[in-house]
Amino acid sequence: MTYCLSINVERGLVFCSDSRTNAGMDSIGTYSKMHTFVWPGERVFVLLSAGNLATTQAVVKKMYRDVEQAWVPNLMTATSLSEAADYVGMISTQLQRHQASRDTANTNFEATFIFGGQIGYSPPETFLIYPQGNYIHESEEHPFLQIGETKYGKPILDRIIKRNIDLDRAARCALVSMNSTIRSNVTVGPPVELLIYERDSLTEGRRLFLAEDDPFAKQLSEKWNEGLILALENLPKFAWENTGAETPETNLSLLERQRHR
Amino acid sequence: MTYCLSINVERGLVFCSDSRTNAGMDSIGTYSKMHTFVWPGERVFVLLSAGNLATTQAVVKKMYRDVEQAWVPNLMTATSLSEAADYVGMISTQLQRHQASRDTANTNFEATFIFGGQIGYSPPETFLIYPQGNYIHESEEHPFLQIGETKYGKPILDRIIKRNIDLDRAARCALVSMNSTIRSNVTVGPPVELLIYERDSLTEGRRLFLAEDDPFAKQLSEKWNEGLILALENLPKFAWENTGAETPETNLSLLERQRHR
Repeated sequence: MTYCLSINVERGLVFCSDSRTNAGMDSIGTYSKMHTFVWPGERVFVLLSAGNLATTQAVVKKMYRDVEQAWVPNLMTATSLSEAADYVGMISTQLQRHQASRDTANTNFEATFIFGGQIGYSPPETFLIYPQGNYIHESEEHPFLQIGETKYGKPILDRIIKRNIDLDRAARCALVSMNSTIRSNVTVGPPVELLIYERDSLTEGRRLFLAEDDPFAKQLSEKWNEGLILALENLPKFAWENTGAETPETNLSLLERQRHR
Repeated sequence: MTYCLSINVERGLVFCSDSRTNAGMDSIGTYSKMHTFVWPGERVFVLLSAGNLATTQAVVKKMYRDVEQAWVPNLMTATSLSEAADYVGMISTQLQRHQASRDTANTNFEATFIFGGQIGYSPPETFLIYPQGNYIHESEEHPFLQIGETKYGKPILDRIIKRNIDLDRAARCALVSMNSTIRSNVTVGPPVELLIYERDSLTEGRRLFLAEDDPFAKQLSEKWNEGLILALENLPKFAWENTGAETPETNLSLLERQRHR
């Protein structure tokens, strides 16, 4: 499986993706699911992919090729982000149909994408492109999009992500959402890629590649665990606990016990 | 849908269930999914149910009836919890088959259960009973069980629940897991039922019924939100935030920047 997400806030965009692919339990691979298409000062696009790897690789290849060969339409000729999303949806369905026409094993060639970026100084946008080539974009009330194994990492986004959140904070929240998903589901795995795009910068932005043993990623996961234990500790007690009859443990002793297990 | 979970720790058992049922989007109902069978000082059983409501109601009714009529086997004749779980699995498959034999609309009569409790002073146990009547029990390393919409509420359990956690703390964690699921998925909804069974008490234990406007449930949700924001706040900052400079390259040992063609 896969887990990818995007966040569109006032100050910019965040993209985050895992790198685990599998074709059956005994065929696990590592492939980047984050692809960038950057014309500095002009336009920036980011594509996150889930689904059939042959389809997604073919889509990415065609997106580069169409620009190189100046075949119209391409990412350079699109006058808006939704026009570019239309183009991605179109080549995705074409390539799926092309593969299906040669299929002998009832294979699922479907692919789903998150696609976003900025053209000139028009507002940055993000889209979720379905296997059918149609798409939705994020909304004011729901500024994030997810594809793949979306459920484990959704509660933290539901609670934290608003349009006016700081960009780096939104990026940390994306990493936590990814980390929770990786912990709970083996079909989603590191390395994790993170891209932070500041609005109107029209560059690729900051891109991080967090391997499994990355010290920052590890520290983030540990600190988040500690924060959750503390949050749990600070929850209102049940009526019968407030009598003082029981002696609650200190936060530290719980942290210690968790560390030593 | 449904979300139910059980936690089996050294000091006892926690059961938690939502109350939303739906037969299509325009037929939403509220039914308790928590059923208790208690013989004080002797044996205690708790059943949480997911799936077809007619099946689960029929199973519960038969469990009560078999004891009343002294039809063997029943919950009183079971000499162990696994024998009792076998009995529940057996009547569940019988009742599913009975309904299916009269079906005209290709209905799904499947039901899944969490079943647990304690018989005398033998160790408390919990089981997840599949629609096929077979079951698994919780393990030392994985002391919780979930049925229904399990993914949203799993990360918090994965991170917090260990065998040696305090019982009330485990119960709060169950409520958080439930609260996150309710926020992220409309097919899971209040009232929330919570049962806290202290090991060797051989009573029903503490049972809470938390309606949508319950002050404790509301306070818990708000405090948890605050705790998460704090946890996010205390996460390690990105390299460029710590230096104050706008250059991510200042700490390459922590954050490896990926080259991209």
